[in-house]
Amino acid sequence: MIRPEQARISRLKALMKAGGLEAFLVTRREDVRYLCGFTGSAGSLLIGPGQPCLVTDFRYQLQSRKETSGVTVVIQKKDFFSALREVADNLGVDTLWFEESALTVAELKKLQKLGLKPRGARELLRQLRMRKDRRELASIRKAIGRAERSFRELQRYIKPGVRERELGLTLEFLMREKGSRKAAFDTIVASAGNGAMPHATATNRRIKKGDLVTIDFGAEADGYFCDITRTLCVGKPTAKQKEIHGLVLHAQEAAMQSVRPGMSCKSVDDAAREIITAAGHGAHFGHGTGHGIGLMVHEGPSVSPLSNDQVEQDMVFTVEPGVYIPGWGGVRIEDMVLVTARGRKTLTTLPRGLDGIKTY
Amino acid sequence: MIRPEQARISRLKALMKAGGLEAFLVTRREDVRYLCGFTGSAGSLLIGPGQPCLVTDFRYQLQSRKETSGVTVVIQKKDFFSALREVADNLGVDTLWFEESALTVAELKKLQKLGLKPRGARELLRQLRMRKDRRELASIRKAIGRAERSFRELQRYIKPGVRERELGLTLEFLMREKGSRKAAFDTIVASAGNGAMPHATATNRRIKKGDLVTIDFGAEADGYFCDITRTLCVGKPTAKQKEIHGLVLHAQEAAMQSVRPGMSCKSVDDAAREIITAAGHGAHFGHGTGHGIGLMVHEGPSVSPLSNDQVEQDMVFTVEPGVYIPGWGGVRIEDMVLVTARGRKTLTTLPRGLDGIKTY
Repeated sequence: MIRPEQARISRLKALMKAGGLEAFLVTRREDVRYLCGFTGSAGSLLIGPGQPCLVTDFRYQLQSRKETSGVTVVIQKKDFFSALREVADNLGVDTLWFEESALTVAELKKLQKLGLKPRGARELLRQLRMRKDRRELASIRKAIGRAERSFRELQRYIKPGVRERELGLTLEFLMREKGSRKAAFDTIVASAGNGAMPHATATNRRIKKGDLVTIDFGAEADGYFCDITRTLCVGKPTAKQKEIHGLVLHAQEAAMQSVRPGMSCKSVDDAAREIITAAGHGAHFGHGTGHGIGLMVHEGPSVSPLSNDQVEQDMVFTVEPGVYIPGWGGVRIEDMVLVTARGRKTLTTLPRGLDGIKTY
Repeated sequence: MIRPEQARISRLKALMKAGGLEAFLVTRREDVRYLCGFTGSAGSLLIGPGQPCLVTDFRYQLQSRKETSGVTVVIQKKDFFSALREVADNLGVDTLWFEESALTVAELKKLQKLGLKPRGARELLRQLRMRKDRRELASIRKAIGRAERSFRELQRYIKPGVRERELGLTLEFLMREKGSRKAAFDTIVASAGNGAMPHATATNRRIKKGDLVTIDFGAEADGYFCDITRTLCVGKPTAKQKEIHGLVLHAQEAAMQSVRPGMSCKSVDDAAREIITAAGHGAHFGHGTGHGIGLMVHEGPSVSPLSNDQVEQDMVFTVEPGVYIPGWGGVRIEDMVLVTARGRKTLTTLPRGLDGIKTY
């Protein structure tokens, strides 16, 4: 059986060959993990002629050999850059291609100082990682399962008097208990007026009867993340709460239904944005409709008005329009979709109604 | 009263003036928070003539105004870079200095494309942030308090049969319960042979009687982190466990005692390394002795054989030598010191013995 990492390296090599790139330096932690399985915090992969070479440090000498196969591991003796220089010499390469968004200017200068010729390439790894393979999908589904089971268990804690921060902590604890190594990001629990801030975190505010509460959360599995948002009403919703929630749900549904391979990601955004704008809330929806997700919570494709990405089979991205009204609050609903051969499949399964899972 | 952020901006402006830098672009999230209090995930600060200008996006339009003062907030209409171009035009600047380790090559190219002249500067923010002011110290002490109280409570869970991962989760939960918004990093719980990996995380392994367990953890307060490691023996330690633990303790003590302003950070590393090397374990201690800590878990100064930093008053850094023996296990002990006018003060207070807090 071919390990998924080997297949990924082959795909990268094919792209390199097509572009005439002899050697490619992979520095982003998630890209390194994607290509060879290494999970350490420091390590770069040089893909050139022959076997890929992982350069890391003493702290990872046992772990790097345990986690990888089909990769030569080099433990730097002094610093990373001199080790890399040696590896490049051994491979007989001096032009090193790299992804421009994955290298800092300081790192670029160090490579140049060593006499290497770093050259910015198209975002090959972004492109590869946008389309998920089978094992990646299994991990994403596992993360979603952990998050959703936790959210269901959270329902009985959502009631008047509880603090936003307590709900966030409880939800993260439930996800960790189910095997998630970490929360995908700082859980957002934004009640009442705080809901008008799309990226609020979770404050000491106590939830009151009649509040809308937006909960944006994600779990992890095998390094992969999920990202889900629900907005609930604690008690009986008002007409306006129902109206705004219904509008966001309608926009989200339209965007999800629109998804099929071959269209632009911008059109998916359009589908949600047109509905919200037509209802007079265009100015209250100032962020993109969604983003790819996998080893990083935010990765390609971008689903926004400025996106140049196309929708392709096997992509996984979020669809999460929202309406945020200063002084009143906000509603966001977020699900994850997988692009299939002719349409899309929604991976997340939690009910999307204002009454949540109806246990309070 | 002058807000600490204003004093920090004044210090930065003085450094800019001394270096002849008219306008400085601050892109690193922690640097932005340090200078103006904004905690969002996206936002850059342009320090030029007149009031500093924070450029961020729709998601943060309420939050940015709430968190900052003395700063002009600009919400980008289209993308970040065109908003920045406008701000620079209004200020009448076109050369933008930046820290080379805080900007990616992709970002550099975008600035150039807009007709701006980005120029790499010395690491001004690294230099400023290395020395902590009063409010920063208070936050660091608060984080340490949360971590240490949690570790004391953890003692009763450390016993044969418990899984590394359960201990890690319990410790993180205890820290969160005490107000820490997140764990400083993925908690390391490395027992027996896993202890030979300095950056192990926490596995499903069950702890056995007689195991050494290395626990490396940190809490947060007001955005500031702490970082502490203890190695305990679950049961009665063997002669070798005592020997290695005693050696690391001796090396750590020597390094901490050596700290005073004016010496090189490399000499602090030397103090620990010489003792470990003299005992024949030099090859088993392959990482640096410590690192600065504050808004980031790893920041300046570097306390390692390759460091060019000097020890200065008001710096806060870790001292954490270790000995890692493949197939046997490892010991690391880590405390945090504050550099005072004539020496140092140890900020962390947990007992460092192999028997921990003696509750099992």
